[in-house]
Amino acid sequence: MRHSGTVTATRPADLMDVRATNLALVLRHVRLHAPCSRADIATATGLNKATVSSLVTDLIERRLLRESGLVGSRIGRPATMLTLEGRPYAAIGIEVGADHLNAVAVDFTGSRLLTWRRAAPGPDAPPGRTVAAVAALAARVVGKVTGQGRTVLGLTLGAPDGLVDGLAAQLERSLHEPAFEVVVEPAATLAALADLRARVGCTDLVHLHGGIGVTAGMIADGRPLRGARGLAGAVGHLIVDPGGAECACGRRGCLDLDLGLPGLVRRALGEVDVPDWGAAVERIVALAQAGDATAVGALTTAGARLGVAVRMLTDVLDPSIVLLGGVLAPLAPWLVPAAAHPLVEPSTVEPNAVALGGAALAFARLEAGALPS
Amino acid sequence: MRHSGTVTATRPADLMDVRATNLALVLRHVRLHAPCSRADIATATGLNKATVSSLVTDLIERRLLRESGLVGSRIGRPATMLTLEGRPYAAIGIEVGADHLNAVAVDFTGSRLLTWRRAAPGPDAPPGRTVAAVAALAARVVGKVTGQGRTVLGLTLGAPDGLVDGLAAQLERSLHEPAFEVVVEPAATLAALADLRARVGCTDLVHLHGGIGVTAGMIADGRPLRGARGLAGAVGHLIVDPGGAECACGRRGCLDLDLGLPGLVRRALGEVDVPDWGAAVERIVALAQAGDATAVGALTTAGARLGVAVRMLTDVLDPSIVLLGGVLAPLAPWLVPAAAHPLVEPSTVEPNAVALGGAALAFARLEAGALPS
Repeated sequence: MRHSGTVTATRPADLMDVRATNLALVLRHVRLHAPCSRADIATATGLNKATVSSLVTDLIERRLLRESGLVGSRIGRPATMLTLEGRPYAAIGIEVGADHLNAVAVDFTGSRLLTWRRAAPGPDAPPGRTVAAVAALAARVVGKVTGQGRTVLGLTLGAPDGLVDGLAAQLERSLHEPAFEVVVEPAATLAALADLRARVGCTDLVHLHGGIGVTAGMIADGRPLRGARGLAGAVGHLIVDPGGAECACGRRGCLDLDLGLPGLVRRALGEVDVPDWGAAVERIVALAQAGDATAVGALTTAGARLGVAVRMLTDVLDPSIVLLGGVLAPLAPWLVPAAAHPLVEPSTVEPNAVALGGAALAFARLEAGALPS
Repeated sequence: MRHSGTVTATRPADLMDVRATNLALVLRHVRLHAPCSRADIATATGLNKATVSSLVTDLIERRLLRESGLVGSRIGRPATMLTLEGRPYAAIGIEVGADHLNAVAVDFTGSRLLTWRRAAPGPDAPPGRTVAAVAALAARVVGKVTGQGRTVLGLTLGAPDGLVDGLAAQLERSLHEPAFEVVVEPAATLAALADLRARVGCTDLVHLHGGIGVTAGMIADGRPLRGARGLAGAVGHLIVDPGGAECACGRRGCLDLDLGLPGLVRRALGEVDVPDWGAAVERIVALAQAGDATAVGALTTAGARLGVAVRMLTDVLDPSIVLLGGVLAPLAPWLVPAAAHPLVEPSTVEPNAVALGGAALAFARLEAGALPS
């Protein structure tokens, strides 16, 4: 038997855990409050000053913190201020999109080191071609970052649900068993984590990620909601238009019929065979801006249907905000008013939400105590 | 900024935490594997034998564990076996139902000490009368349990969402500021925790709790899902019958119209003014067992609508099971087949799921490290 929220202890604690916990605590405090002094950290954390000094020395030796000069205080001698040392480390996030790959690398201070966008084999290509394209891009990003003298701490792929299984293992083989960890997560979950990181104080949110279909990334009490089999957030077949058109899933009026790229492009542009989804979305935006009735009508209908799904999700999950990402982000100016729900807003971290969420995940492990040695 | 699932450290760790964590770890191991020896615990936890002996001595002094005799082992001398010492402590859970109060007290081994059911003022009564009735019952339960020489570790109330605010504070005043903690949680959340405790290895489940309305208790990755404002699980107004009757909420075809007690009783019994919901449900069960077409028809329709809601919830949350509780439990023989969803089953901990979940919550705090001194 296991129980509930409050029970998390599953392994014994020892002195190394205490030190790792406190190192992570100091690191996190400096990320949120830099520049700050050792005395500031002691006051804020409740750790004594000698312990803080020892922890800070350790973090400076690990090249995670650095001293950034003196600041005079009103009482006593000037204090040495501390800030994050971003340069030695990097984390990489790669989005496997509908027809593109999007890679970012960031340093520990959050500075973007690179943002690369590439055409991808697309959802109909054999999985092997997608893996090969991702592996080639990942190898180039790793090469670039390590060529700058940085150590890669982790690489996270954001992939559509169907591709998640086995992708990490294949990629690790392609990268010749790298020293860093390779993780694959649903794209929407990573985008939701990126939104969470960008929203101070927010603990419960939903990110609706638009692509070939719509999926939801959900954060509850600060943690991603994954489900028993990792399939949570499959909102594309919520029924939002009862009695509507039949869906391939056998139901009628599913969200994906109006919001997924194939349906949306067909209604907004009247086109079925689209070689480039990104270009099609750009054309929809241009037409809607010009007041084209067909495009605006398709977006208004889609937004209303989105509103129905958002009401279901807010009833069930009680988030403080619902963010639109992926291809829904550029369409937000039309979708948001039509959704007519007070919690719906465009994500502020697009177009790189998935990749940034992936990179952030590697650094989050640092602050959970997994420090580089 | 805060991040993600893996980041939980928000306060410094110290040596007391290490000891509390390890005490809780040993306690939890004995609960799951009793009777077991000190050597068993050392092997399973990775703690060294001297540490385990010291922790066990401490737990015996706190009267949480006791020695239960010798067992011969194949090698070496016989080992002293350990088991939970249930008697000194009790936890209390009280359900505030549609027209009843249901109280249980359990000891730390999970043995039921008492189960009391009382008529309650009902949902239309002024909140003050409900609080007074709950306080009177709570005082009698506390008196009974302490009269047996037990220490009460905690009291949890399961209440409909609207009553949660302020109820704990009022109850603490009525109980003259007791030494134990008084907590109020949504009824469905407690019922879900009771289901979780009863299902070894399950981490993601939904409990649909039927009463005046239907609410969902949701467990994700072993933790209750509460939402930004504590309002998660408000599934009663999910639209399950598009174009159906208008609901007081302004939508049409809400789940509560068919599954909430007022609608269900009206359709199954043809009665609007029901003085006793419990008796009405018993009559519906009796009629359905006798094959009454009206009752069976109402339950079949309700079950089909329930199935629509379950599909939405499983798409979003990906639970491994959806359990029917509250007044849905006795109706499960008709609701489950009509719902036509493979994950739907009656809860195995009814009719005391809410109260048992409440009592379990107090003991869960023990295993999270909040040991009695």
